[in-house]
Amino acid sequence: MASVDVPVALLGYGTVGSAVDRLLQAQAADIERATGHRLRVVRALVRDPARERGGPAPVTTDFAEIRDDPSIAVVAEVMGGLDPAGEHVLDLLRAGKPVVTANKQLVARRGAELFAAALEGGVQLRFEASVCAAIPVIKVLREALVVSHVHRVLGIVNGTTNFVLTEMERGSSYEQALAEAQRLGFAEPDPTEDVSGQDAAAKMAILATVAFGSRVTIDEVVYEGLERVTEADVAAAREMDMVVRLVGAATLVDEHVDVRVRPALVDRTHPLAAVEGAFNAVMLQGDAIREITLEGPGAGGLETASAIVADMVTIVGTKGTGFLQNDASWRELPRLPAGALASPFYVRIEVVDQPGVLALVAQRLAAHDVSIARLVQHQADGSATLHVVTHEAPEGKLRAALDEIGGLAEARGPAAALPVISDRGVAELGWR
Amino acid sequence: MASVDVPVALLGYGTVGSAVDRLLQAQAADIERATGHRLRVVRALVRDPARERGGPAPVTTDFAEIRDDPSIAVVAEVMGGLDPAGEHVLDLLRAGKPVVTANKQLVARRGAELFAAALEGGVQLRFEASVCAAIPVIKVLREALVVSHVHRVLGIVNGTTNFVLTEMERGSSYEQALAEAQRLGFAEPDPTEDVSGQDAAAKMAILATVAFGSRVTIDEVVYEGLERVTEADVAAAREMDMVVRLVGAATLVDEHVDVRVRPALVDRTHPLAAVEGAFNAVMLQGDAIREITLEGPGAGGLETASAIVADMVTIVGTKGTGFLQNDASWRELPRLPAGALASPFYVRIEVVDQPGVLALVAQRLAAHDVSIARLVQHQADGSATLHVVTHEAPEGKLRAALDEIGGLAEARGPAAALPVISDRGVAELGWR
Repeated sequence: MASVDVPVALLGYGTVGSAVDRLLQAQAADIERATGHRLRVVRALVRDPARERGGPAPVTTDFAEIRDDPSIAVVAEVMGGLDPAGEHVLDLLRAGKPVVTANKQLVARRGAELFAAALEGGVQLRFEASVCAAIPVIKVLREALVVSHVHRVLGIVNGTTNFVLTEMERGSSYEQALAEAQRLGFAEPDPTEDVSGQDAAAKMAILATVAFGSRVTIDEVVYEGLERVTEADVAAAREMDMVVRLVGAATLVDEHVDVRVRPALVDRTHPLAAVEGAFNAVMLQGDAIREITLEGPGAGGLETASAIVADMVTIVGTKGTGFLQNDASWRELPRLPAGALASPFYVRIEVVDQPGVLALVAQRLAAHDVSIARLVQHQADGSATLHVVTHEAPEGKLRAALDEIGGLAEARGPAAALPVISDRGVAELGWR
Repeated sequence: MASVDVPVALLGYGTVGSAVDRLLQAQAADIERATGHRLRVVRALVRDPARERGGPAPVTTDFAEIRDDPSIAVVAEVMGGLDPAGEHVLDLLRAGKPVVTANKQLVARRGAELFAAALEGGVQLRFEASVCAAIPVIKVLREALVVSHVHRVLGIVNGTTNFVLTEMERGSSYEQALAEAQRLGFAEPDPTEDVSGQDAAAKMAILATVAFGSRVTIDEVVYEGLERVTEADVAAAREMDMVVRLVGAATLVDEHVDVRVRPALVDRTHPLAAVEGAFNAVMLQGDAIREITLEGPGAGGLETASAIVADMVTIVGTKGTGFLQNDASWRELPRLPAGALASPFYVRIEVVDQPGVLALVAQRLAAHDVSIARLVQHQADGSATLHVVTHEAPEGKLRAALDEIGGLAEARGPAAALPVISDRGVAELGWR
């Protein structure tokens, strides 16, 4: 391959945009040797040229200067937000310009429109950086596991909450852990998008779409954040040699899709339990591969830029052949009914400490076909705490049983329930 | 993209070859939806058509029938061995046929010739399946981390030895663990290639070549297997909350390459420590990505076939553009001098139990600038065992000190030394 000079452009020239520009310059020789191309930022769109100038590239406030420049081979959208980023990306694709985006909310909310525009323009849209920064999970799902029939994606895809949970495991309170995350820059001043599970939900929507080839938008992802995780949950997990993690799970059951994000107990021997601090990990389970786990930093300007540059290089290198059908979604799949997804669960129930209460609780669970794998009772001051690990049961049945238990005169407040993730049988889980 | 029928061929039709054929058939619809192509095995080379018939594809004993058939778009070499596989692959590439190979010994020994032939023929040679089966580490290194300047690759790339070490951790002797591995099919009847480290060395040669863009052949990889790992090493590791693993390490230091395979102590909080049983994992450390770890099954017919099919699909999809320069090696790098690579080490020394011996040992280490981070002494029956963890030191200096210590009248036999892998400071490692 002869070396070719390739002009590219950026929408946005902040932290990520300037990191993309720097990487393209610093690694120009590596990229040229690997691919035969030399990519160069010739234009960056900014709102205020006086304030935003992430590097030496010429800036503009006029989007048309990028869209209408026939020399620009690929555009990276690194401005974030839904508007005007969404309209710009649509315009570029329709005009026949390939786009790379790091914008998870955009892809998770408007993926169908974006890929329709890419098809219309006959160009590629790539989005590796929208999920877990430099961890190449989109590439691996689409290009390496094309025949693996992936049916389950388990992910720790939000570094902020993972950092908070890891700190809580070490003895911090939730408030202390969050303050520490903010101090270290792992959490925003307003941490809502992260701790509510919304950020993870957008990423899981994208991963589910790619893994199952069927569009899932963020609106369909049931998510829960750290709101209800207590220090007691973290302590109970430790007693059973497990850890609490915010786990995204996309599951394909009998050609039905279920995507959710919520706190879960993860067995210490499970690969996801080893993910500490602000790191991310995604486990892909499929027929031909059993399971493959990818772990790494899930955020960071340089890490995100690295993924964007890899996508730009891929687009430049595969122009013409396309390599892949552009849109990862090629079929409609029905959704699993609410409550149908089965899992083992950890349940914590506060009851008055008197004979027969345990039997009552066990009876209510059994009445809904929920079978107990392990049970420990802790007593204190006239009340008792039952720690129960159930065998696999549909969540709807567990909820029905817990509602009844919560209504018992002997119950002290509602029961807490968390799914359990383990490769071992739940009866074999340790309990110190 | 219009759907296109693509005839392909296999060299070999055994376990892996027939799994490739089955996957291409079973997943034909998925492949076509993802890429627009339908791949079909039209010919398989076998030695004895009466005995080898892995599936419904027409077999032949005449290699020329494959090489000279202009309709065949890509050939997968799954026969194994160096001869005649090597000559066949060279012939195909020179004749302008793209090749996918799962043959790690072939790529690790004759990579330079193979890629020269691919260049001559103007076609791609891909080899994902040659390292860690379905774990897409080659694709990730070459296509996703193109600007990440990877400078270190740490891998558990041999499932047999990892299974044996995991079993030893649980209390088995080496012999029991190996017998169990053989019973479960994780170890060959003759396990030499695995337990000697030779298999891991071939994989590390390939990974180093791809990661650093500089050819490393297996002959340059210093390797050691499980021969010298004792149950005492495993027990000592456990005391320090570490595990013994056979670790391949490819390191780029000041543009010098060092590639080796040997037993190491790995801190339990390190991602490589979580790799249990016959699984593999590779950790890639680079400037823009910090570290990314890929874990999964490193062997198996179906897993290997999955990687081969992904490579075939990639070749078909990127024909013409090439996407990547074919040969991963584009520069010559000098080798790090023997003994220059630095690491913290665990050292176990048996000495006579008398006053002043510890001081003698410490003196010999200090004389070679090896500094002690932690030390524990166990006494029994007139002899003592010193367990020492050193700070980072060049291996040559440690060896020189240990040679002197071994020569002391107070020493009982040579000292055992293993590198220590930890993200924490060695002084912070636990010692129960």
